[in-house]
Amino acid sequence: MRSIYEAELSQLGEDLATMARQVQSAIERATEALLTNNAELAQAVIADDAKLDELETRVDERCVLLIAQQQPVGLDLRTIIVSLRISAGLERMGDLSQHIAEAARRAYPESAIPTTHREIFEGMSTAAKDAAAQVITLIETRDLNVAAQIASDDDLLDNLHSEAYQRLLAKDYKGTAQETLDTALLARFFERFGDHAVGTSRRIVYLVTGDLNNSAAAI
Amino acid sequence: MRSIYEAELSQLGEDLATMARQVQSAIERATEALLTNNAELAQAVIADDAKLDELETRVDERCVLLIAQQQPVGLDLRTIIVSLRISAGLERMGDLSQHIAEAARRAYPESAIPTTHREIFEGMSTAAKDAAAQVITLIETRDLNVAAQIASDDDLLDNLHSEAYQRLLAKDYKGTAQETLDTALLARFFERFGDHAVGTSRRIVYLVTGDLNNSAAAI
Repeated sequence: MRSIYEAELSQLGEDLATMARQVQSAIERATEALLTNNAELAQAVIADDAKLDELETRVDERCVLLIAQQQPVGLDLRTIIVSLRISAGLERMGDLSQHIAEAARRAYPESAIPTTHREIFEGMSTAAKDAAAQVITLIETRDLNVAAQIASDDDLLDNLHSEAYQRLLAKDYKGTAQETLDTALLARFFERFGDHAVGTSRRIVYLVTGDLNNSAAAI
Repeated sequence: MRSIYEAELSQLGEDLATMARQVQSAIERATEALLTNNAELAQAVIADDAKLDELETRVDERCVLLIAQQQPVGLDLRTIIVSLRISAGLERMGDLSQHIAEAARRAYPESAIPTTHREIFEGMSTAAKDAAAQVITLIETRDLNVAAQIASDDDLLDNLHSEAYQRLLAKDYKGTAQETLDTALLARFFERFGDHAVGTSRRIVYLVTGDLNNSAAAI
């Protein structure tokens, strides 16, 4: 049985990496759809989100079965518990990519981003894509340096998020209510995307170190 | 050992109910702060969120220890896994209450809600308070009728959320960018609050029935 168990645990790690790659693809395409007003690409992101939801269910079922059948302890148990939380976070990152794509699709053929905010959203797109790439590396390597980098890079998304709101509230801002609404929500989606990347990094820190106190709200 | 184990499992249920009652208190006070421009009450909600975060950590630690020490199977295992997810959802509902309180505090002494949207936010406040009360009942009773009711009542929050956006985009809407920004985010916070209540109800359905397919994304 032990070899089947090890294969199952290894498959769990591969499923999470697959989910992370799908999240990366979703955020890359969603941000391109947003920045280039590409409704077809936006539609593809929206349609593909169901695959991520299925993968999440598969990971969760595998985790419950592994605990029930193998009664793991120690690192194996931590791996499974943390996998349950990571899959939920990745699924949510997929949802946020989908929301970004929905905003692009709704605004088409116009842009969902007012010209006042284009530069900010270009920055947020790059930061979100970087975060997704780092999450893949982190899941594959469990490198604590990558985890620290994700947490520190998130400041950029938080700052751009604040800047987006400040610019909405500037005296010379003349956008329509639709532009203000889109910008408010899109900036929040990007910020939340970064939060979930940080959440994943905290969970991996907990997995590697076993220290819940130094990885607040890790699991 | 068995009696200690049962006491631990029972304590887990009580901790979740305690979390749910704190969420109810948070959303009641946050919505009152929002509707009555009460900065002091808003501040209390914001300060109290740390208690909910601590409770989540306690629930999570108890779950991991229970699995490691008792190697539960069947319903006990499902209870623990589902508790992990429910605690995360409740913690998030607390965060959303905090965000609502932050909006009230920032706008003080003005209201964060434009007069065009007062009635909608009164409706959302009532719906969110009802959802929080139902979640407590559900955790305490595991009554599937309550779970179904939470899912069906969530339509009201979704509809009010849509109505809030439609009213922002109406031709005669003349709100400032600050009002539009606040309204967009607040409506989304209430909608997400309802989503997390529905998530909790799905997890309890999974717990009671063991059927993952009829309780989509339950765990």
